Amino acid sequence: MSERDRTTERAVEEIRSALDRQNPDEAVKILMGYRPADQAEIFHQLDEQDRETLLPRLGTAAAADLLEELEDVTAIETLEDLSVEQLADLFDEMEPDEAADLLGDLPQKQATQILAEMENAEEVIPLLGYPDETAGGRMTTSFIALRPHTTAEQAIEFLRQVHPDAEIPYYLFVVDRDKRLAGVVGLRELVTVSPDTTMESIMIREVVRVEAGTDQEAVAELITRYNLAALPVVDENNHLLGVVTRDDVADVLEEEATEDILHLGAVETGPLSDKPYWSQRVTDMVRSRFFWLLTLFIAETLTGTVLRYYEAELKTVVSLAFFVPLLIGTGGNAGSQTVSTVIRALALREIRTGDMLRVFWREVRVGLILGFLVGIIAYLRALLWGVGQEMALTVSITVVAICTWATTVASLIPVIAFKLGIDPTVVSGPLMATLIDATGLVIYFSLAAWLLPQL
Amino acid sequence: MSERDRTTERAVEEIRSALDRQNPDEAVKILMGYRPADQAEIFHQLDEQDRETLLPRLGTAAAADLLEELEDVTAIETLEDLSVEQLADLFDEMEPDEAADLLGDLPQKQATQILAEMENAEEVIPLLGYPDETAGGRMTTSFIALRPHTTAEQAIEFLRQVHPDAEIPYYLFVVDRDKRLAGVVGLRELVTVSPDTTMESIMIREVVRVEAGTDQEAVAELITRYNLAALPVVDENNHLLGVVTRDDVADVLEEEATEDILHLGAVETGPLSDKPYWSQRVTDMVRSRFFWLLTLFIAETLTGTVLRYYEAELKTVVSLAFFVPLLIGTGGNAGSQTVSTVIRALALREIRTGDMLRVFWREVRVGLILGFLVGIIAYLRALLWGVGQEMALTVSITVVAICTWATTVASLIPVIAFKLGIDPTVVSGPLMATLIDATGLVIYFSLAAWLLPQL
Repeated sequence: MSERDRTTERAVEEIRSALDRQNPDEAVKILMGYRPADQAEIFHQLDEQDRETLLPRLGTAAAADLLEELEDVTAIETLEDLSVEQLADLFDEMEPDEAADLLGDLPQKQATQILAEMENAEEVIPLLGYPDETAGGRMTTSFIALRPHTTAEQAIEFLRQVHPDAEIPYYLFVVDRDKRLAGVVGLRELVTVSPDTTMESIMIREVVRVEAGTDQEAVAELITRYNLAALPVVDENNHLLGVVTRDDVADVLEEEATEDILHLGAVETGPLSDKPYWSQRVTDMVRSRFFWLLTLFIAETLTGTVLRYYEAELKTVVSLAFFVPLLIGTGGNAGSQTVSTVIRALALREIRTGDMLRVFWREVRVGLILGFLVGIIAYLRALLWGVGQEMALTVSITVVAICTWATTVASLIPVIAFKLGIDPTVVSGPLMATLIDATGLVIYFSLAAWLLPQL
Repeated sequence: MSERDRTTERAVEEIRSALDRQNPDEAVKILMGYRPADQAEIFHQLDEQDRETLLPRLGTAAAADLLEELEDVTAIETLEDLSVEQLADLFDEMEPDEAADLLGDLPQKQATQILAEMENAEEVIPLLGYPDETAGGRMTTSFIALRPHTTAEQAIEFLRQVHPDAEIPYYLFVVDRDKRLAGVVGLRELVTVSPDTTMESIMIREVVRVEAGTDQEAVAELITRYNLAALPVVDENNHLLGVVTRDDVADVLEEEATEDILHLGAVETGPLSDKPYWSQRVTDMVRSRFFWLLTLFIAETLTGTVLRYYEAELKTVVSLAFFVPLLIGTGGNAGSQTVSTVIRALALREIRTGDMLRVFWREVRVGLILGFLVGIIAYLRALLWGVGQEMALTVSITVVAICTWATTVASLIPVIAFKLGIDPTVVSGPLMATLIDATGLVIYFSLAAWLLPQL
């Protein structure tokens, strides 16, 4: 448990106890002692009734800050009992992009009523048309745009007058008379030049920008790669529509990185499993897993086919069966180790498509060495079970062969998939393990037929 | 392949062809047409000789920008042939924190020679004492510190004079006469207040700060959670030592998130496997995998013990063996699906320790439904193999039981581990699958003994 978890847990207890003592004002005071991100964490742990008691007492500004930090599901639960007027005030206070996100999750009818009551509805409405996971869905429409001939002094004076909100980033965008994006000036640049300098003469003209339909993962990658505080969003004619700020996509890369875990665990990703855990219904979970579980089941019947083929050998030497789960399990584990190493290196961009042969050559050596080491133990273990010298030899040679084979296959499949534009994690998890199972059995019985005198 | 990969690949080809035509100036011109982050990507793909031709021709400032973006291994390879004087110039031009990082990776003797030649050595030397993975190791010593009575006008004038580097963030720190951190002023705040406002009157006093020894993961989490551009680093007496900027820890959270993939693949993480893929030697890779591969091998011998126990049954009905890999494989897959879902939800903080019973109850239902669905297919498949009615029934009931059992175990283990403070990924991967294998076999043979008339 982290320091922060302990702090928020203590806050939750104190708030609950204040509410039990019918002292909501004290509860509000405790909550307001934390930063909005921590308030959201605390709020999440309170039950619905406590949240509904607290929210109206926070004041509109604080409540809006808190709502922006809450996960959508929790936010919507919390808002359920408020009137349309209260909701409109709250949404007016929120950043337009956050307000649009939340409005999009409300029932159509309720959203329309709230928009009708809102003062800043015209800032929010254009944002409602973009899917949540695109640059358009993540952008805010409140940004600063200046004209090319504006001087630094005028720009600073303008900023003093509008006194922009916290979310407005440290970039001033320069647009031409048709509102086309012409350049960008950093706030730092503005401060350090002489007062009569024009925007035109200090703006950077080659601005990294995206179109509104760009996927949020690409947006997050651009922001991280070029270390931007914000990224302008334009339409196909380069008109400035809005700005995605860094905090809007802070969780996107972590979400995407952890998707690999689902793929490696044979869970389909998509609209169903992308929802937060508690927003998924049991039937959603079944649907996102059934296809792969069945596919793997059918692929795994290959192992049955192999074993039926060796039925005579199994009847003659029944102890051959004892080692089947052990051997295919070890092959699967050796393969998993390689796959997870390679997948991670691909995700962190340490391995590239051109590196396939070098990866292959490394992993083959690693597999061979590991196979030898485990093979020695396998030999001794089999002897201890009293299965006889030849059987122990068969098992240990199979371990060497399976480990090498598994690491080899596991080193090639993710890189080939990556090269073909298939997500490497989708084919590298259980699907590959299943194929290693079946081929591993062929290796085992072939070696047995060759080494065992009874066969 | 992404748009960006294609662009950099084209650039690499053009640069190689220019160098082949003995035209290094054109190669330099092509390279300089890209942003530093992209230059680094291109540089990484060139071979050492090409890099050594290009680097000295870039000019010190551009070369320093590029070096900051390169991975340490590539950077060091590239620097090998430069003289101490050339290196000292380059390191002088780099941000102190980046220079310290790179110097720390050079041989002690070479680093000392370079420091002796450097002009800004005194900015870099204090940073050399902190481990790479701490706040101290990641911080830069070039930051802006003002006194409480400084006015906005004076501050702006000061900024105009020093014209700080790009890495200096958008925060001005306020320190007392003993250099203790007293507050922080945002650049935006500075611009929008009236010129005679003092720092004291606008500074935020409750600054999020860390001590120099704080782990980089905690630093990255604070920066992300509170959406900071930079985080001040202090000593135990609150003296301001330096600043960690957001870009310095941009890759930390992704690195940590992808560590789960290694754990789930039974690869030990630590100093060996934390190195970039190509910096690990084959023996490093063997060492980070051998322990788990062997542990799992030994755990998996449990399956052999179970099978030996049922030797008589296997001799009587050899077709029982045909379904062994299929059944334990399906159990393993059902367990993996649950584990990866739960691990991801824990990582994204959607599931908390208190949620154990709710998770358990969901996953049991999901496992039961999936088991029934796959069980029906299993029944039909077994009949098609002609193993007889009773055998088909045994297999299909086993599928239901194993799927439910596997999802149940897999739903509990990660949450229990998390509660006990053990990294849930370490115990939830192959180790759990191995235990499901052995228990699954017991379920299978018990059902067979009960349902098959021959036994």
